[in-house]
Amino acid sequence: MTVANAIFWTAPLTALIAIFAAIYFALWVKKQPRGTPKMIEIQDAVKEGSIAFIKRQYSTISIIGLIVAVILWLAIDLTRYGGRPYTFLAFTIGSATSLSAGAIAMLMAAETNARTTEAARRSKHDSLITAFRGGLVMGLIVVAMSLLGISILYVVYSYWRDAPTPSPQDIIGFAFGASFAALFAQLGGGIYTKAADVGADLVGKVEAGIPEDDPRNPAVIADNVGDAVGDCAGRGADLFESITGENIGGMIVGLTFYLALIHMNVPAEIAVNFIIFPLVARGWGLIITLLASFFVKLDENEEDPMRPLRFAYNLNVIGAIVVFAILIYIMLAKPLADSLGISAGIFWGFMFGAAFLGLGLAWIIMIITDYYTNYHYRPVKEVAAASQTGPATNIITGLSVGMESTALPTIMLLIALIGSFIFGEQFGSIYKTKFAGTPLENPLVWGIYATTIATMAMLSVTGMILAMDGYGPIADQAGGVAEMANVGEDIRKTMEALDAVGNTTKALAKGYGMTSAGLAALLLFQAYLEDLYREAEKLGLASWYAPDGHIKVDITRPEVLMGALVGALLPFIFTSMSLGAVGRAAKGMVEEVRRQFREIPGILEGTEKPDYGQCVDVSTRAALKEMVVPSLLVTITPVLVGIIFGAVAVASFIIGATFSGIMLGFTLNNSGAAWDNAKKLIEAGAYGGKGSEAHKAAVVGDTVGDPAKDTSGPSIHVLVKLINTVALVFIPVFIWFDAHFHISDFFKWLGL
Amino acid sequence: MTVANAIFWTAPLTALIAIFAAIYFALWVKKQPRGTPKMIEIQDAVKEGSIAFIKRQYSTISIIGLIVAVILWLAIDLTRYGGRPYTFLAFTIGSATSLSAGAIAMLMAAETNARTTEAARRSKHDSLITAFRGGLVMGLIVVAMSLLGISILYVVYSYWRDAPTPSPQDIIGFAFGASFAALFAQLGGGIYTKAADVGADLVGKVEAGIPEDDPRNPAVIADNVGDAVGDCAGRGADLFESITGENIGGMIVGLTFYLALIHMNVPAEIAVNFIIFPLVARGWGLIITLLASFFVKLDENEEDPMRPLRFAYNLNVIGAIVVFAILIYIMLAKPLADSLGISAGIFWGFMFGAAFLGLGLAWIIMIITDYYTNYHYRPVKEVAAASQTGPATNIITGLSVGMESTALPTIMLLIALIGSFIFGEQFGSIYKTKFAGTPLENPLVWGIYATTIATMAMLSVTGMILAMDGYGPIADQAGGVAEMANVGEDIRKTMEALDAVGNTTKALAKGYGMTSAGLAALLLFQAYLEDLYREAEKLGLASWYAPDGHIKVDITRPEVLMGALVGALLPFIFTSMSLGAVGRAAKGMVEEVRRQFREIPGILEGTEKPDYGQCVDVSTRAALKEMVVPSLLVTITPVLVGIIFGAVAVASFIIGATFSGIMLGFTLNNSGAAWDNAKKLIEAGAYGGKGSEAHKAAVVGDTVGDPAKDTSGPSIHVLVKLINTVALVFIPVFIWFDAHFHISDFFKWLGL
Repeated sequence: MTVANAIFWTAPLTALIAIFAAIYFALWVKKQPRGTPKMIEIQDAVKEGSIAFIKRQYSTISIIGLIVAVILWLAIDLTRYGGRPYTFLAFTIGSATSLSAGAIAMLMAAETNARTTEAARRSKHDSLITAFRGGLVMGLIVVAMSLLGISILYVVYSYWRDAPTPSPQDIIGFAFGASFAALFAQLGGGIYTKAADVGADLVGKVEAGIPEDDPRNPAVIADNVGDAVGDCAGRGADLFESITGENIGGMIVGLTFYLALIHMNVPAEIAVNFIIFPLVARGWGLIITLLASFFVKLDENEEDPMRPLRFAYNLNVIGAIVVFAILIYIMLAKPLADSLGISAGIFWGFMFGAAFLGLGLAWIIMIITDYYTNYHYRPVKEVAAASQTGPATNIITGLSVGMESTALPTIMLLIALIGSFIFGEQFGSIYKTKFAGTPLENPLVWGIYATTIATMAMLSVTGMILAMDGYGPIADQAGGVAEMANVGEDIRKTMEALDAVGNTTKALAKGYGMTSAGLAALLLFQAYLEDLYREAEKLGLASWYAPDGHIKVDITRPEVLMGALVGALLPFIFTSMSLGAVGRAAKGMVEEVRRQFREIPGILEGTEKPDYGQCVDVSTRAALKEMVVPSLLVTITPVLVGIIFGAVAVASFIIGATFSGIMLGFTLNNSGAAWDNAKKLIEAGAYGGKGSEAHKAAVVGDTVGDPAKDTSGPSIHVLVKLINTVALVFIPVFIWFDAHFHISDFFKWLGL
Repeated sequence: MTVANAIFWTAPLTALIAIFAAIYFALWVKKQPRGTPKMIEIQDAVKEGSIAFIKRQYSTISIIGLIVAVILWLAIDLTRYGGRPYTFLAFTIGSATSLSAGAIAMLMAAETNARTTEAARRSKHDSLITAFRGGLVMGLIVVAMSLLGISILYVVYSYWRDAPTPSPQDIIGFAFGASFAALFAQLGGGIYTKAADVGADLVGKVEAGIPEDDPRNPAVIADNVGDAVGDCAGRGADLFESITGENIGGMIVGLTFYLALIHMNVPAEIAVNFIIFPLVARGWGLIITLLASFFVKLDENEEDPMRPLRFAYNLNVIGAIVVFAILIYIMLAKPLADSLGISAGIFWGFMFGAAFLGLGLAWIIMIITDYYTNYHYRPVKEVAAASQTGPATNIITGLSVGMESTALPTIMLLIALIGSFIFGEQFGSIYKTKFAGTPLENPLVWGIYATTIATMAMLSVTGMILAMDGYGPIADQAGGVAEMANVGEDIRKTMEALDAVGNTTKALAKGYGMTSAGLAALLLFQAYLEDLYREAEKLGLASWYAPDGHIKVDITRPEVLMGALVGALLPFIFTSMSLGAVGRAAKGMVEEVRRQFREIPGILEGTEKPDYGQCVDVSTRAALKEMVVPSLLVTITPVLVGIIFGAVAVASFIIGATFSGIMLGFTLNNSGAAWDNAKKLIEAGAYGGKGSEAHKAAVVGDTVGDPAKDTSGPSIHVLVKLINTVALVFIPVFIWFDAHFHISDFFKWLGL
């Protein structure tokens, strides 16, 4: 059995290199000075709070996760693998890896924050580099751990299971585990951070009139802890899940090609490339990210600290294009040409075209997101202008901008998908006769493979996105440290500039996160269809699902249509729950802060210290309480749809939820960012500046936007992938119910 | 050719009866006293403003409509009917009928408002009856004109065209015309009313601190005009479209049965019942509404004026159940049993079960909507409570409640659809062999017919819904007249109570509107599939769309998948535009009102009269300017999808837009109503009452909710039906492009 070849081993190898580099950067950060005793004190408080939350959160997740793992063993491993705990273990390892990556990201942020402030004493450059390297550790670790985990599991399981062919579908539990942990981490962290943030702002900024991050605000430490547990751990888990889902989904789609090529007597070492391509591409993409990261340098005269980050990102995109050009040639085009006599040039041309479209999407999505969330452009300016007529028009305009912002990313996604599909389909049409008698004679199959390549390409710059995204909360916390530790005006100014960039990178990462989540979900949807077919084939039911060899998800069938309806509903219910959770949690925080101001009168004069711990506790308890039900709902719904409406309805359910989720996710993320930056625009002096009526209105918008962009929106990224991995894992259960139960049985039972 | 039988003629007959009844009620209203000279003056001002707006709005719609009609003649009539202007005329008549119904509804409201106030001098009962009869005129006229228009066109076209079989698809232009006019009417009216309302509230209530409907507010007349043109003309057009689409869609679906039964030698007078059933059912449903309306009586000691309306509604539902029980038996079950030897009881049982589910849905949707929008229940109470911590938490909680409110209606819709489908499918399975060799041997077809019956049943109470809905703006205007004409405290109190009920009925009508729009859209989707198949069959392309005789909308095909993605996007873009339009228009109104207060200082002291006309003009210009682009976008998108992605992708586009629209529509409608009533709850004394901080926060929520519930939400009802009727009309164009152009041609052209 050939499950891997020489080039495969570069995947775990590059992952190890990235991990070593991450350790190097982490040690480098650790070596930087931590600043004044006051700064050290604040940093320790944030670190303590973060660790305390993560510990409690992870215990809760572990308990629920263990229950799910046992259910998986009973439902899947017993029926599909005769009790060998493939899914159980993969799920457990996936959750644990995802959570560890999140924890490392968060701890790194906590280590980096004060050091970033301190570095600002030396220069803007040093400060930027410190924060960026803190973020880079997260970027490298997240991608590398996913890659390493998948590579090891894939090889180990292949030999352990000893199936006649590679079986990437056996490790889908890893992706499910990652998704499952990610939803809890993102939602819990998101509720935590926004309860603290909204609570701190509403009472501190609006009612008491003290500035942001003022140490007199009892919720200030909770707010900074929130940045770490929400933005770092949350987004880390989110993108860990994206790349994990994309990798395993890509491998499952590749299996179809492997089987067909083997059937055509192509040597296994060549055929297996279609399975391992996603891993190798991810590995070399990571190396490019690492190299590009060295180009982040800030000239002291540079006005815009975003420029070096953007430069590194563009370098990374270009480097990734080169990687794909090379890998497509040496792993796919050349070997296929050698063994089947097709033209390597034609294959390369079409597939590289697909990769190019994917990377083009990664690049243009940043520009679109920037347009909608940066205050230099029309949308945010409109929101700011609407603030002059009060909070209501600010909210209406912000919602309008957020909904408008769904259009361009969707159209670009559509162009990338349809474009890459047509590339692949054209290749398939040209060589239709070559592949006669195999599934590959259908050009559709090649079209789908091309969209898979586009997805891989789009996701190959994830490391850099994460580094930029991780930079955001670090700069935010560093600004908080500067404010609280009273470090002097110019350092505060520097930190403000760096923090503003952090807001931009966070917004961009969300645009990338939502788009890539959509792509990953569609790839997993494809994997679902192919795995469903193969599983049904094993049980002799393939012709039932696919009379002509291809599963049709026909929405004129009512149960399929209803699957899509339930899917479209899910993101709305979930968002209702997550918004409601933040509302409730923030209310608790507001009451706590008000109580402290009332009962400890010395706080506002600065003579008494507020009880920070109590606020941390309020956020923690609220987050843990509120994260469970929505997360379980998302996990259980696909299973219920599959049991009630059948395996094919799950496919339309996935699409319904993905599309509805994409629209809602973009709306929430971009409305939130537009409100945030409209406020910043006014604070920079527009429409009367700070303290004006317009500013008060903009603060309301910002507060509404907080849970939208930091809790509900990002959680939807996770949702659309989680439902896919759940569906993939539960395929055997769906097939069993489809085979053993039909609604007409119920009528027969009724005697009708 | 048999296109009709004796029972058919009861449809136009009942429509005529309803029209006469409407005239009777209108004359009755006209006979009521108009009140004091001051009241007459206000009434005239509102009437004048309404007529002025309607005139300008209708001219704009007419010009655009004429262009569309000419395009239809070129694109459809020339190719499909050899130049005979079937579609051109049907479209024109449909638009004109829809607009006339809207205008009558609006004029009736303008006639009724002051008379309702005046009647309150006599008794609460008289006042309620006056307003309700004003609304009833709208309910009867809208339903009757739709029914009469369809009946006449159907018969006239059948003889004019002289086709061998009845051809209800020829009159689909009528539904398209109605949809087209409805979108303009709803959107334009919605922008008008909310620009005026938001503008009046923001400056008058919030900034100047004067009460609602105070005559010192320059926007007060525009606000009252808005109630007429937005709520009356808008909702009238919306539901005119729903029932028109449902009727014609139901006839097209019925054609399949007609053809199959003729093939089985069933006499044409019996077979045609499947086509004309929707019309006859609608006619007798209208008679039931008329009868039930006589039971609206308000006891002077009755605390809750909602009770008599709810009683009449429940009576109507029960009456409709009886109508369906009888009509299903005499039109379908008995004749089928007589001619084919099937069991009339079994047929009746299953189909009546479907009708029962549809009416159950109509009934339960009111209870659910009431739960989410009435301040006696948890959701609104939560929003009100959240106002204590400021406008931001009020907005967050309101959004959360709105999104939550999507769940129960969707689940009920799902149960009704799946339930009725299963009923039909069971019937089909039992008599599978009976129908062997015809399309009816597939139980799926019977399942779909049963969902059609459920839809008809659900929509059979539309007249009563419209009467209750029309009552709302009349009571609202009557309250305005009471306020402005200074009629004394107890009359104002009575009007406040009646106005509160109006808010409830308006919210309920929207819940019903969205649900019925979803059902009508799904029915039209079915009609689209069947008409596409028949048209393709005529051109010899049927096997291409449906290799096994049944069109599959397979979302694993990328172009079909992308159709759904574009569909999911459309309601978001449209909502962005409509919200933005209200934001811009309201800004203009705010500036105008502020200007008047500034430049005419005597206004606030009550010594000088504000310039009402200027505000009416601001709203009018804004509405006309802003309604065009979004409406055209919705009309053009399905055509573009069909041309680029093909006819089958249009089907998935429809589903994507319908499902995304249902979610967004419920969210916008119910968030808006919850914000509105949270404010009312606080005004009734909760959380500090009027003038408290909580109240200020609730006013912000109410203002955000205004465009959500009165502009964007209701426009989505229209949107989901419009895209269907556009698609149905443009089928020949889609087929032409599918047959003559494929993307691979483009590659060939490039030389690839």
